[in-house]
Amino acid sequence: MSMEPRLIARIEALRGLMESDEVDAALLSDVSNMRYITGFDRVFDPMVHAAVTIGPDYLRFYTDSRYIEAARTAAGGTEWDVLLQGDQLFTKVCQDLTAAGARTIAVESSVPHARFVLVADCFSGRVVVADRWVERLRVVKDAVELDAAARAAALTDAAFDHILGILKPGLREIDVSLALEVFMRSHGSEGLAFDPIVASGPNSSRPHAGVTDRLIEPGDILTMDFGARVGGYCADLTRTVVVGAKATTRQRELYDAVLAANEAGLGAARSGVRARDVDAAARDLLAGMGLAEHFGHSLGHGVGLDVHEEPRVSSVSDEILRTGSIITIEPGVYLAGELGVRIEDLVVVEESASRLLSHAPKGLIEIV
Amino acid sequence: MSMEPRLIARIEALRGLMESDEVDAALLSDVSNMRYITGFDRVFDPMVHAAVTIGPDYLRFYTDSRYIEAARTAAGGTEWDVLLQGDQLFTKVCQDLTAAGARTIAVESSVPHARFVLVADCFSGRVVVADRWVERLRVVKDAVELDAAARAAALTDAAFDHILGILKPGLREIDVSLALEVFMRSHGSEGLAFDPIVASGPNSSRPHAGVTDRLIEPGDILTMDFGARVGGYCADLTRTVVVGAKATTRQRELYDAVLAANEAGLGAARSGVRARDVDAAARDLLAGMGLAEHFGHSLGHGVGLDVHEEPRVSSVSDEILRTGSIITIEPGVYLAGELGVRIEDLVVVEESASRLLSHAPKGLIEIV
Repeated sequence: MSMEPRLIARIEALRGLMESDEVDAALLSDVSNMRYITGFDRVFDPMVHAAVTIGPDYLRFYTDSRYIEAARTAAGGTEWDVLLQGDQLFTKVCQDLTAAGARTIAVESSVPHARFVLVADCFSGRVVVADRWVERLRVVKDAVELDAAARAAALTDAAFDHILGILKPGLREIDVSLALEVFMRSHGSEGLAFDPIVASGPNSSRPHAGVTDRLIEPGDILTMDFGARVGGYCADLTRTVVVGAKATTRQRELYDAVLAANEAGLGAARSGVRARDVDAAARDLLAGMGLAEHFGHSLGHGVGLDVHEEPRVSSVSDEILRTGSIITIEPGVYLAGELGVRIEDLVVVEESASRLLSHAPKGLIEIV
Repeated sequence: MSMEPRLIARIEALRGLMESDEVDAALLSDVSNMRYITGFDRVFDPMVHAAVTIGPDYLRFYTDSRYIEAARTAAGGTEWDVLLQGDQLFTKVCQDLTAAGARTIAVESSVPHARFVLVADCFSGRVVVADRWVERLRVVKDAVELDAAARAAALTDAAFDHILGILKPGLREIDVSLALEVFMRSHGSEGLAFDPIVASGPNSSRPHAGVTDRLIEPGDILTMDFGARVGGYCADLTRTVVVGAKATTRQRELYDAVLAANEAGLGAARSGVRARDVDAAARDLLAGMGLAEHFGHSLGHGVGLDVHEEPRVSSVSDEILRTGSIITIEPGVYLAGELGVRIEDLVVVEESASRLLSHAPKGLIEIV
């Protein structure tokens, strides 16, 4: 098979960034960056010891004996050279780069410092840090990526629908979390995008509560934050429901406030807008209700091969939203020790609006 | 509550390493290292933005608003100062270290290079790399750690027993993996030590096969590699069984060879022995049967707060095993495209022998 045009375009874009920074070769070892540039699907077990080098006229993928066959299959008839390397991977990479005539190479700033030192020691030329080259390319998704994300979001929506049929007082948070996971993974999720958060009653007032063995009680607010991964791409959804009773007035007021903030954020997100202005649209609305101090986190974040990637959607973000970015809109209000509500959607930024990938219902659901 | 003596001992040992390297303060941000030194249990969500600084007369834990209450509770009446810090965490840490009079500080070599650069830029003095200080302390486990690991291993054994009652042809690998996970997590595992490997039939010939939706067929070899986490400590167990038929002669011969290698490794592991000699005990036995080339990975690795930590148990390891280390003994033989067998136990290194933490049966099990 020959190389897909969209992969050729990525490699050429990367080479363009290399050229403008006067760098002869890029050395990648971040799992998501390698996956994005090579297009290899299944060889990027996080345990893999692998590296990618890209020069003006070569593409090399290094891996060890456990993954070499998978990598060769993935490379097929493309221009990738798949090379076997074990323990001394980065030493060999440096030797090969020197032999290929590279005098300045760039590595990702996310590499462990020890690896940077190793490469700086063993490469004969100059080693600089790539300024989020691949990460910047990943900000705008192509049609194949958007399709994978949409399938991940649909599977996540289906898991929410599934859990609505199960939820009842007496279940533990961990039972709910496992039911979500088993549903998603047995229906095709590649692992999960992240460990679910299932926070009931007072636990819902902690935005990153995790999952405990607390029993859900009648009348509890229950916040569930979870996502599947399909074709490498993550989904991220949060829904808050009331279990075992009708919502109290206070629960409903808080829910309505957060839902209004969610819709304000969704309404503000479109191409050309500053990410901080989208954050402000939701935050200002909550401030008008006296709730701003209880919304302590950012409105959202980019999602793709990683569940947290660029662009940031926060009050200090300088980024301008671009058509084809996938972001979350997830306002939350947390009343310490009492209750919290968060409502999160996954959306694609488009020319004149944001387009929802999450289609799970958003009206307050009371499971009685 | 005052500080536990075992935690005081760790901090004093770390201060000793600092002093011999003429370093005024250590700056930690690795999740397992922070957990080990502080003893804080539940605040170390991997998503946490946190840091620890240790100077001659101060202990400081920095975290953000999501975790500050949990951290203050964990610190209780100990000497830890728990400080709130958000986005500018490492800038604040550097300022405080300067204010405390530190002139040389050490950071872990595992930090992202970007963080090392940030700290080097904002700290007024000299920044050096700690040579695996905390990692070296973690090599020898105390009684509390050994107890947690034993409970993790017991829960892992129980999951194996549970899965034996479920296994049959027609199940998918992913169904087996999820059943193992649900059992462990609903019985108290804190997440999992790692994503299980469930490899059936020809998939068993790839040591890091992961999990597919392949249907288990009658007569398949099935390799399962999985582990629970209890009290922060990981277990790691591999068992290989035959499903839906009696073992073939070839399956049994391979199984017996790997079991003999496992027992040779277990017999060689004890305090004072070179880790490479333990690897050799198993490897030489397989070599004697002409199988050495099919055993492509190390015999084992240290296990603790991380599922892979020191000491390495490989043919190139220079380390000497010490009483109180927890290691795996996991020989495997992989006949490409045909079948593979791996048998792995978790053991504690003791004065004159290794002591098994894994008690799952090791005779060849045929599920018919």
